[in-house]
Amino acid sequence: MKKMSIRARVVAGTVAAAAISAGTFGAVSASASAPAAESRAAVKADTHNRNLQQTTHLTIDAATKAAQASLDAAERAGQRVTVAVVDRNGNTIVTLRGDGAGPQSYESAEKKAFTAVSWNAPTSELVKRLESAPNLKDIPGTLFLGGGVPVQAKGAPIAGIGIAGAPSGAQDEEFAKAGIAALSR
Amino acid sequence: MKKMSIRARVVAGTVAAAAISAGTFGAVSASASAPAAESRAAVKADTHNRNLQQTTHLTIDAATKAAQASLDAAERAGQRVTVAVVDRNGNTIVTLRGDGAGPQSYESAEKKAFTAVSWNAPTSELVKRLESAPNLKDIPGTLFLGGGVPVQAKGAPIAGIGIAGAPSGAQDEEFAKAGIAALSR
Amino acid sequence: MKKMSIRARVVAGTVAAAAISAGTFGAVSASASAPAAESRAAVKADTHNRNLQQTTHLTIDAATKAAQASLDAAERAGQRVTVAVVDRNGNTIVTLRGDGAGPQSYESAEKKAFTAVSWNAPTSELVKRLESAPNLKDIPGTLFLGGGVPVQAKGAPIAGIGIAGAPSGAQDEEFAKAGIAALSR
Amino acid sequence: MKKMSIRARVVAGTVAAAAISAGTFGAVSASASAPAAESRAAVKADTHNRNLQQTTHLTIDAATKAAQASLDAAERAGQRVTVAVVDRNGNTIVTLRGDGAGPQSYESAEKKAFTAVSWNAPTSELVKRLESAPNLKDIPGTLFLGGGVPVQAKGAPIAGIGIAGAPSGAQDEEFAKAGIAALSR
Amino acid sequence: MKKMSIRARVVAGTVAAAAISAGTFGAVSASASAPAAESRAAVKADTHNRNLQQTTHLTIDAATKAAQASLDAAERAGQRVTVAVVDRNGNTIVTLRGDGAGPQSYESAEKKAFTAVSWNAPTSELVKRLESAPNLKDIPGTLFLGGGVPVQAKGAPIAGIGIAGAPSGAQDEEFAKAGIAALSR
Amino acid sequence: MKKMSIRARVVAGTVAAAAISAGTFGAVSASASAPAAESRAAVKADTHNRNLQQTTHLTIDAATKAAQASLDAAERAGQRVTVAVVDRNGNTIVTLRGDGAGPQSYESAEKKAFTAVSWNAPTSELVKRLESAPNLKDIPGTLFLGGGVPVQAKGAPIAGIGIAGAPSGAQDEEFAKAGIAALSR
Amino acid sequence: MKKMSIRARVVAGTVAAAAISAGTFGAVSASASAPAAESRAAVKADTHNRNLQQTTHLTIDAATKAAQASLDAAERAGQRVTVAVVDRNGNTIVTLRGDGAGPQSYESAEKKAFTAVSWNAPTSELVKRLESAPNLKDIPGTLFLGGGVPVQAKGAPIAGIGIAGAPSGAQDEEFAKAGIAALSR
Amino acid sequence: MKKMSIRARVVAGTVAAAAISAGTFGAVSASASAPAAESRAAVKADTHNRNLQQTTHLTIDAATKAAQASLDAAERAGQRVTVAVVDRNGNTIVTLRGDGAGPQSYESAEKKAFTAVSWNAPTSELVKRLESAPNLKDIPGTLFLGGGVPVQAKGAPIAGIGIAGAPSGAQDEEFAKAGIAALSR
Repeated sequence: MKKMSIRARVVAGTVAAAAISAGTFGAVSASASAPAAESRAAVKADTHNRNLQQTTHLTIDAATKAAQASLDAAERAGQRVTVAVVDRNGNTIVTLRGDGAGPQSYESAEKKAFTAVSWNAPTSELVKRLESAPNLKDIPGTLFLGGGVPVQAKGAPIAGIGIAGAPSGAQDEEFAKAGIAALSR
Repeated sequence: MKKMSIRARVVAGTVAAAAISAGTFGAVSASASAPAAESRAAVKADTHNRNLQQTTHLTIDAATKAAQASLDAAERAGQRVTVAVVDRNGNTIVTLRGDGAGPQSYESAEKKAFTAVSWNAPTSELVKRLESAPNLKDIPGTLFLGGGVPVQAKGAPIAGIGIAGAPSGAQDEEFAKAGIAALSR
Repeated sequence: MKKMSIRARVVAGTVAAAAISAGTFGAVSASASAPAAESRAAVKADTHNRNLQQTTHLTIDAATKAAQASLDAAERAGQRVTVAVVDRNGNTIVTLRGDGAGPQSYESAEKKAFTAVSWNAPTSELVKRLESAPNLKDIPGTLFLGGGVPVQAKGAPIAGIGIAGAPSGAQDEEFAKAGIAALSR
Repeated sequence: MKKMSIRARVVAGTVAAAAISAGTFGAVSASASAPAAESRAAVKADTHNRNLQQTTHLTIDAATKAAQASLDAAERAGQRVTVAVVDRNGNTIVTLRGDGAGPQSYESAEKKAFTAVSWNAPTSELVKRLESAPNLKDIPGTLFLGGGVPVQAKGAPIAGIGIAGAPSGAQDEEFAKAGIAALSR
Repeated sequence: MKKMSIRARVVAGTVAAAAISAGTFGAVSASASAPAAESRAAVKADTHNRNLQQTTHLTIDAATKAAQASLDAAERAGQRVTVAVVDRNGNTIVTLRGDGAGPQSYESAEKKAFTAVSWNAPTSELVKRLESAPNLKDIPGTLFLGGGVPVQAKGAPIAGIGIAGAPSGAQDEEFAKAGIAALSR
Repeated sequence: MKKMSIRARVVAGTVAAAAISAGTFGAVSASASAPAAESRAAVKADTHNRNLQQTTHLTIDAATKAAQASLDAAERAGQRVTVAVVDRNGNTIVTLRGDGAGPQSYESAEKKAFTAVSWNAPTSELVKRLESAPNLKDIPGTLFLGGGVPVQAKGAPIAGIGIAGAPSGAQDEEFAKAGIAALSR
Repeated sequence: MKKMSIRARVVAGTVAAAAISAGTFGAVSASASAPAAESRAAVKADTHNRNLQQTTHLTIDAATKAAQASLDAAERAGQRVTVAVVDRNGNTIVTLRGDGAGPQSYESAEKKAFTAVSWNAPTSELVKRLESAPNLKDIPGTLFLGGGVPVQAKGAPIAGIGIAGAPSGAQDEEFAKAGIAALSR
Repeated sequence: MKKMSIRARVVAGTVAAAAISAGTFGAVSASASAPAAESRAAVKADTHNRNLQQTTHLTIDAATKAAQASLDAAERAGQRVTVAVVDRNGNTIVTLRGDGAGPQSYESAEKKAFTAVSWNAPTSELVKRLESAPNLKDIPGTLFLGGGVPVQAKGAPIAGIGIAGAPSGAQDEEFAKAGIAALSR
């Protein structure tokens, strides 16, 4: 476990880059190398006890910091949104229902975050996958609308941030990225 | 808060106009100015206490009056419908299941109203947005069928009225507008 | 509306006092004056438009501050909990799932907060009401376990804070009160 | 069917009496004659077509009138409640969420109405039946708290009115009875 | 009410004809006269008491006879299906899970019946309406697959029969029609 | 499988006796021999294929016959009830909502049948077990009210019949037994 | 295996062949003979008791063996998946949530298995049926994504195996087939 | 993390002892030291990245081994049960529905496992806590019946094993312990 810790870092740098070049954001793309990356989960066997494994998660402090940063970014842009952070195990760990956010935004934010962490890709990318597999969107808990982005540790998904309430998914995604960027500060 | 109250009025006048020119009904359209309007929610900070905010809602008397007017309009047209009024916080505040309305109409009416107040636009307009973002309709609580219209105060959504049961969404919407029109009488 | 704003303040002072004298915490007790207090909701007609009313809510910033303070208090006490803030309209506005909090704590925290804001009393007090009306606890959304406290503005409930995960409801309630106390800082 | 129509009348007179003598309100009590009354449903075979039967219901106008009267009574008493009317087939036909009613009141009102029309008795009476059959309250859709009363036609249940939000079930029931009384005006 | 009874008959004759000419089955088609027919519900005001109305339903004996006939027809065809009969109020009144019917058939049958009675048309016809209003199928409780047919009294829908489990919706519909045909024997 | 079939018979004889001596009805009682009986399920390994097992079920014809007999018995007694038959795998296989049965009766009947087949005992007996294990009634799908009885093959539960709607569970149980008795005719 | 029933055999041989020629996998294809095969369920009347029928199921040992083999195959391929086995009655009998499998995989696996056993065909084949009947996918419990395959006895479906979590449905299906292949070892 | 790994071991030794002395089984009892133990979750901050934490889980191989051992123990005792293993994050990771297990056993087993891992104590112990806090059992997901035991790593709960289907909770618990015992082999 030790080495992992040393090298583990939230991929905020990558994300900051992604803000510039959205096409390369996240560990998974349509390229041939994607599947391998996708299956590299933040899970590690415990060599001292064959019954145990370790998994990596955001702390609640980090998740709250990211969510707050997303909400701040939305407020600066004059948008009223809800923010959700969902763990890789599927549990919601933070929600912030912004002042004046529409009633549809709460579940939307959770589902976008869930979707992003499930496939380790921004939901704006995942929408494109529906062209070849349209029924992916029938999987319970998912929502294929821009605004969800994965949080990664060493390329593996450890959480998703989902934003809902802005007029476009692109804007929602911008705020989600602002949340991830806060993790490297 | 005082000034807001003075200027606050349910946009029945606008709505009456909209009945003539349906294309311009509601505060949000596909025009470039829509997003700003959309994010202008009926929420106001309380300058005397930084912890508090005020939100604007229909009274139950107003909501009932509108719902009854919608039902009356449907009856005059020989249609059997259910009427629902949903608050901006997503709570249903009035339902009237009309005599002989089909069993599918109750949840339909609620969901249309929820959808209209969520996006501050008639559901007949929102259907068009699915062309660019088809998965909007996967958001829980929504229904993208004509028959839902937002109730606005100073352009911000404070409620939605949803009607279901007539043979077409256009007719359902007509009854919903009759409900809003009653608010200015 | 103006006067209300001037006098509106979150009852943090009262709460601070309550921290000293838990028996008097909250606006509602078993005394004869309780029912009147209970029905005094944070709702006000708009004298300029008979169709509208104003309601008072915590801002998301205030709700987050309170939730964070609750979580901090739990951490200082070495307890792992989830915190939820629920609005008077029943919507969850903030959740923070603390590091290591049990899986049962998330829904518990939400339900405690919902219960406290519904009856405008700490859930520890509400448990006692089950003696005379045991089926109150069958109302959907409620949980009659200590750990939920109402947030009040001028005595009326505007939100509830719910904590779950500590070994006793009394401890959960202590953390909830710490959240409310933070609103006066 | 003709004769039934002629004799059919909402038992408002009985109810008015019940307002005076609450102990005798409703068609079903613990007396030996109750079961027979209980099974006398508002259903009648159609002698001209063995495949058909007729059932009797409140019109939406009557249901709305009753619900409004209940809400008015609550407002006169300074209580903030939700009112629901549920048909004998279990469908909610009217809901009115009163200004400032607690978030728990909406489902409570519906369930009380459902319970009253299911057993053709006020929920305050039905609570007593739990002494001998405590698990009745586990039946889905029910709530055994005072505030629900049946609406009867010729002694058979055709609807239930449920009120929730007042400090006591007795007060809720009072408002429900005011709703029924309005049907004879 | 008397006259109605006299003229009321389940449209088995029409249905028998429909078995020959499926294109004319049911009261609602794509023709211009359909909407009027559709809104003609089996509801009648009670002229002796303005608060009451009468609605027409299948007896349980008739519904069981129809369901059994549908199941028999499926068995004769070597198909394993589930049969459901749903009342116009949306309640399921009969279900028969045929021997060996697939696990998906139970809810499918109920939803087909619900859909047919809601729109007073066979689900095979209703599928075509999705071309102009594709989101009709998002209404809760519905399923737009062949196999559901309405049962009518004087042209108004009083129930739906839904069949599921055969390899095609056309076959399912055939069995449903056999059920309706049994009502005229 | 052949031999089992030869000896398999629905325990109608036992049940008929039980109708006389209700105290001994059903295979499971509080006696010491009960546990063994309870675990004797209608499941049999296939000695020719270690991957397969056979289970025994009521045919739909038998289940319908029993349900109809229960409904007939209720009608003879002037009671309006719903009847449900639930398979040992937990699936509902028949429901008959009797004319005029209360809206609470449908789910009640299903849950009583589910409970009876789960524990292979009449629900009236199972109520007594709550004295030592009160939380049994929190198991999803169950209802601990008289009116459910198991259908057995060689002592093992293969289905449950549940009745709801009569004024007492004892009467509901009587009708359920009439349904089982019909299986031996 | 051979003796059971002499003709009964789990179609592992067929499946192994199918791995080579996927187009012929499973008993149901688009050919004209499919419907007959599809309706041949693993149900058999009991000639000694007209009330009873026998159904064939996987033992839990067989189901576990298959699920484990599927999981092993996925691990060998470096994929993190969840495996589910669903009985023909619709009940889930085994689930194995693989280390690091995404949170969306659990319900997906169950639904794929449910879909495969419902239609007795691999979900990859069933996707094609949506071209002619697109609303099949609205049937509750189903998911039309590759990764589910039926387990058959004498051509009839007795269970489904569903896998979810690999980057493509084709890979998921490969692991499902590995599970079925294990049944013949 | 390294040191933790070295010392981490599933508390199978403790459990084996517990099998002899059931009174001391599990890390949490009513003693004064319990609360501290209870809040010691299997969560550890990552000292190299303040945003991350590690949590400890059973591998799927270990969970399957335990579940299989529980099922084997039940079969040896002639009992038909369902086994579930639930992770500390609340996700079910393994289910095995034993041959002939009752339909109520599946959800029961999951809920018992959930309850045990939530409070880090056997459900048979937790039942006693209801004396002082009876409404604990209203927390969603829980079931307070014997048969659930926690799996611990260094005293902290990392999973729960739940068994349902035997005639008594004590027997169910015995099988659950057999599952845990298998982890030390």
